[in-house]
Amino acid sequence: MSTRYAIVLAAGKGTRMKSELYKVLHQICGKPMIRHVIDEIGQAQFSKTFVVVGHGAEDVRSCVGEDAECILQKEQLGTAHAVLQASRQLGGLDGTTIVLCGDAPLITHETIEKLVDFQERQHADAAVLTATLDNPAGYGRVIRSESGSLAKIVEDKDATAEEKRVREINAGVYSFNNRLLFELLGKVGNDNAQGEYYLPDVIALLVKASRKVLALKTEHFEETVGVNNRIQLAAAEKYMRARINRKHMEQGVTLIDPDTTYLSADCSIGSDTVIYPGTVVKGHTQIGSGCTVGPHTEIIDCEIGSGTQVDQSVLEDSWIGNDVQIGPFAHIRPLSKIHNEAKIGNFVEVKKSEIGSRSKASHLTYLGDATLGEDVNMGCGTITVNYDGKNKFATKIGNGAFIGCNANLVAPVTIGDGAFVAAGSTITESVNADALAIARSRQTNKEKYALKLNYRTNN
Amino acid sequence: MSTRYAIVLAAGKGTRMKSELYKVLHQICGKPMIRHVIDEIGQAQFSKTFVVVGHGAEDVRSCVGEDAECILQKEQLGTAHAVLQASRQLGGLDGTTIVLCGDAPLITHETIEKLVDFQERQHADAAVLTATLDNPAGYGRVIRSESGSLAKIVEDKDATAEEKRVREINAGVYSFNNRLLFELLGKVGNDNAQGEYYLPDVIALLVKASRKVLALKTEHFEETVGVNNRIQLAAAEKYMRARINRKHMEQGVTLIDPDTTYLSADCSIGSDTVIYPGTVVKGHTQIGSGCTVGPHTEIIDCEIGSGTQVDQSVLEDSWIGNDVQIGPFAHIRPLSKIHNEAKIGNFVEVKKSEIGSRSKASHLTYLGDATLGEDVNMGCGTITVNYDGKNKFATKIGNGAFIGCNANLVAPVTIGDGAFVAAGSTITESVNADALAIARSRQTNKEKYALKLNYRTNN
Amino acid sequence: MSTRYAIVLAAGKGTRMKSELYKVLHQICGKPMIRHVIDEIGQAQFSKTFVVVGHGAEDVRSCVGEDAECILQKEQLGTAHAVLQASRQLGGLDGTTIVLCGDAPLITHETIEKLVDFQERQHADAAVLTATLDNPAGYGRVIRSESGSLAKIVEDKDATAEEKRVREINAGVYSFNNRLLFELLGKVGNDNAQGEYYLPDVIALLVKASRKVLALKTEHFEETVGVNNRIQLAAAEKYMRARINRKHMEQGVTLIDPDTTYLSADCSIGSDTVIYPGTVVKGHTQIGSGCTVGPHTEIIDCEIGSGTQVDQSVLEDSWIGNDVQIGPFAHIRPLSKIHNEAKIGNFVEVKKSEIGSRSKASHLTYLGDATLGEDVNMGCGTITVNYDGKNKFATKIGNGAFIGCNANLVAPVTIGDGAFVAAGSTITESVNADALAIARSRQTNKEKYALKLNYRTNN
Repeated sequence: MSTRYAIVLAAGKGTRMKSELYKVLHQICGKPMIRHVIDEIGQAQFSKTFVVVGHGAEDVRSCVGEDAECILQKEQLGTAHAVLQASRQLGGLDGTTIVLCGDAPLITHETIEKLVDFQERQHADAAVLTATLDNPAGYGRVIRSESGSLAKIVEDKDATAEEKRVREINAGVYSFNNRLLFELLGKVGNDNAQGEYYLPDVIALLVKASRKVLALKTEHFEETVGVNNRIQLAAAEKYMRARINRKHMEQGVTLIDPDTTYLSADCSIGSDTVIYPGTVVKGHTQIGSGCTVGPHTEIIDCEIGSGTQVDQSVLEDSWIGNDVQIGPFAHIRPLSKIHNEAKIGNFVEVKKSEIGSRSKASHLTYLGDATLGEDVNMGCGTITVNYDGKNKFATKIGNGAFIGCNANLVAPVTIGDGAFVAAGSTITESVNADALAIARSRQTNKEKYALKLNYRTNN
Repeated sequence: MSTRYAIVLAAGKGTRMKSELYKVLHQICGKPMIRHVIDEIGQAQFSKTFVVVGHGAEDVRSCVGEDAECILQKEQLGTAHAVLQASRQLGGLDGTTIVLCGDAPLITHETIEKLVDFQERQHADAAVLTATLDNPAGYGRVIRSESGSLAKIVEDKDATAEEKRVREINAGVYSFNNRLLFELLGKVGNDNAQGEYYLPDVIALLVKASRKVLALKTEHFEETVGVNNRIQLAAAEKYMRARINRKHMEQGVTLIDPDTTYLSADCSIGSDTVIYPGTVVKGHTQIGSGCTVGPHTEIIDCEIGSGTQVDQSVLEDSWIGNDVQIGPFAHIRPLSKIHNEAKIGNFVEVKKSEIGSRSKASHLTYLGDATLGEDVNMGCGTITVNYDGKNKFATKIGNGAFIGCNANLVAPVTIGDGAFVAAGSTITESVNADALAIARSRQTNKEKYALKLNYRTNN
Repeated sequence: MSTRYAIVLAAGKGTRMKSELYKVLHQICGKPMIRHVIDEIGQAQFSKTFVVVGHGAEDVRSCVGEDAECILQKEQLGTAHAVLQASRQLGGLDGTTIVLCGDAPLITHETIEKLVDFQERQHADAAVLTATLDNPAGYGRVIRSESGSLAKIVEDKDATAEEKRVREINAGVYSFNNRLLFELLGKVGNDNAQGEYYLPDVIALLVKASRKVLALKTEHFEETVGVNNRIQLAAAEKYMRARINRKHMEQGVTLIDPDTTYLSADCSIGSDTVIYPGTVVKGHTQIGSGCTVGPHTEIIDCEIGSGTQVDQSVLEDSWIGNDVQIGPFAHIRPLSKIHNEAKIGNFVEVKKSEIGSRSKASHLTYLGDATLGEDVNMGCGTITVNYDGKNKFATKIGNGAFIGCNANLVAPVTIGDGAFVAAGSTITESVNADALAIARSRQTNKEKYALKLNYRTNN
């Protein structure tokens, strides 16, 4: 195997996206298009990857990070011109170079490797990825010689009637003998309607020079789909969603409706977990086995154990143990840690808090900057008062404590193990273990007084 | 261009809908079918529109309003008979009249105008809209003459084997020379199986009289889809949804999943706004650019600025500014006004209230009949007690005030600028600017007392 | 009509499901696959049903219950061997026996009966259900004789080129003369690649013996779909969902988006009810007419009257009357009873409680183990304190009572008819009818004191 390089073309303006966001940064299944391409390249064996970017592409650079070298194409003069920008880095080197589009996010590393392997094994000087379309109108057609090698790529508008009937199209992914590529790039002209330098012209030059050029047809048409507008963006997302969901189903995950299950490219899910419709999983979320998730749940960058249930809730950047019950209508905010068999019920918010095993906050509760031991019972409507308008303070609740309904725990405050806080109390001082704390007024009943209030209405 | 009239047939009973609701009032994408048709006519140039309605059609009249004149068809004796009901209004007038079905809600004004223009430019006496179906079984076939003009419309049951193979069908939309239409309507008979007077018979009479009758084929089959049962209603909704969503995507809106994004026909959305799945937008909602909306959010008749985020929430008939954060699990009820950079967090309800810029109600709060200044901090669990069982009262909170957790503000009450209300207080009297208000009991701790309660259980 | 028996093959391990759950127990539309098959058989006229199960199938036995007799197949040696396990029960009996697969959950009782009727009326000894596929690759082909009877079933791998072009496939559902079936089962050999005893070999033996064997083609291909992995599970669920939803639409229910409406096989819904997307209805739920349900609502085993609205809520095992308003974001937990015209608003949980007609809990309320009379007004943030850490206690609230905001009612406690509880009170003693109860501290305002707190920040 020779040294391999990858060049990703990502300088296109994407005018038809009608966006202030650089085109290749638009997301597919929660990840920028360019990252999909870079991540697939990262799974194949390439020595170095280059991304050709246009003006204002600082965000692309930071998205790509250490995984590729960005090269600026000052003017967008066509795909051949874009590749030519890498001549300082790659010109004259031996090896094989693959050229990919940063706005075709569905390409896989299997196909990338297949194309390069195909070229190298056949001792060819270039190989072009192709696909067969039912309706090829608008695409460049691939015309093969009798031997099956590539004879020419003809643009739709230049095609004869016979050529137009060809259904094999140029997918825009090329593998080249690197040295030849950069030798020929300089000879590509721009004598065409757009006045651009086109990469397929290198193929034409190779054929003209009787070099061996091959075409490799992929069975997965969607891998070649490019994104130029939001309609194509949604279409690409749908393909990627189906691919991701298929992988999870093959691994033993039940998706009640794969069409409406939105899993990120980078999440992992254990077998026998059931995902209900409308669930959105983002980032590097890990979900264990035997869980029930959704419907209508959002999980972002969480680690969740096994046997846990999450219903109609939103979870962000938190750690959740085994056999935990969450929801419906709970919100776990970042940096929370919820231990095994805990319960976070309806209308409960947890923020930057740790909840011990078997502890419960079943209803209408806010836990912020709090540490709960095991077997704590937070009554309905309890609130950790963690903010005084200026700073945030911590609340600590010991094992087995019982906090009565509608109690306020004004932080900083500590409730000892086994302590009991009476319903309706505002607690401003710490409570020792096993103590009872109460802070409320005695009840007065005024007989018949409600009659005077005359509050009743028919509505 | 001659004077143009439109007649919409809307007298059908819709028995197969199995509904107490008049057929054409069933909704597609949140708007009654008849309104879709009327609104499209309204975008074309027609002098007057007539809707032929049946018994009990008062609701249709009020739905149509000033946009068309309703004409009662006392008995439903067929489409020709329905059109004939307009003879008092239209008989004898010069001009062109288009006849549309009130239960075919997908017709567009472009197609309506195309058909009438086509007839007029070709100096024809009538033109019929047609479509090509893969499976035309059950539809009336359009048989063309050698010159391409319409030779006859033959019903499926009367078609010869050869005619049945014709895939061009009658879409049920007609444009007529108005004077001729009403002259011939009287000559249509009802000598057929159903004993009804059929409008296509006017076409037959025109052809018989050697008048020029044309057929115009639409490429958009779905425009001709009629709704006779709930299955077709859902199918029409799906077509309309795709059309609406396509328009927004073309304008630079990202729809993560257009198949599960439910936008009303009349909403507007700025570019670079991202809509997550399961979002339902109703009425005349306007959403600015750069917003993030959804998943699983309902927005009804709201005006929303730019850069605002709404997650898993319900918003009704309210005004929301720029860079506002709403949700997850918030409910904005009618007549609220939420200014820039405000935050309405989880489990918060806002009703008929104004929230100043940068003010926050982050959790478990109810704001009803309240006016908040800027930079107000509503603690968790705070409640504006706006109802005494008989009347609603207002709460006013000044700039920079801080309301402690679980506080009740018993309206009518005013909290001055910069005032501080202690957590757990029930405030019944107004608080001056910069004052601190407190209304709670002192805490008592009873050591070891919780042991006596013996409340601990294993569960 | 002869005596009829049914045998359901349910012993397969389902390795490709990658599950700890026995294959036929995986659910389709909320019901185990085997239950779908058993329930369809139950709607046809069979004297007795047998389910052939494998090791570890205790859960299948309990799922099947009294509706069939389970027979253990100790080793899985093929479909003929599986049927043979019923020889003790069925061998030698007159009658007709249908053999079905427990992992093909879409079969209907209509098709089951059609197949048996077809065999019996034609005095045949067996009948095989078939379907026509566009792409039959991989399936056993059905080769018919000139008379149209079944000549042979040929496995894909054994088929000639001509046979491979046949698109009629064996659906794996058979009807047999019972006596003959069990006579021939013993003659089936296992001289094949897998070393298994195959049921289609009985068909071959019948044909060889010049018995009359027929093939009945179903128009509904999906009825024959089998489930061997999670991808097929999702596909079967989609078919079933479409079938269930079609039935409800035919009966006058509006489904805004049938593709994302998840109704259980056993729910009933009245006409003119509108179901919004993302709604999940489970179990034996009954919903009346003229309701509005969803979006994003879960209803499990509830009975709901007419004219009721449920928005973005979760309802479990409860009874809901007419014209009730629920949600958005409400949670009705099991054993609740909510009477006509009541309102359960946002962020309200009801558990094991009865809510009288026209009573309201509009916001941020918890009602647990409570009985509310009619016309009760629960203020915002009110809580029934039903748990002391050890036991649950009841709250009783009389007609027309008014409970002020953020009040705690510490159970056991009774609030009399027309009583008034002041906002912010923690009520520990019962309140008589028409009395006012108050338990809160007097408010103190400390002028200018907030300035000293210096709490203001820019954030």
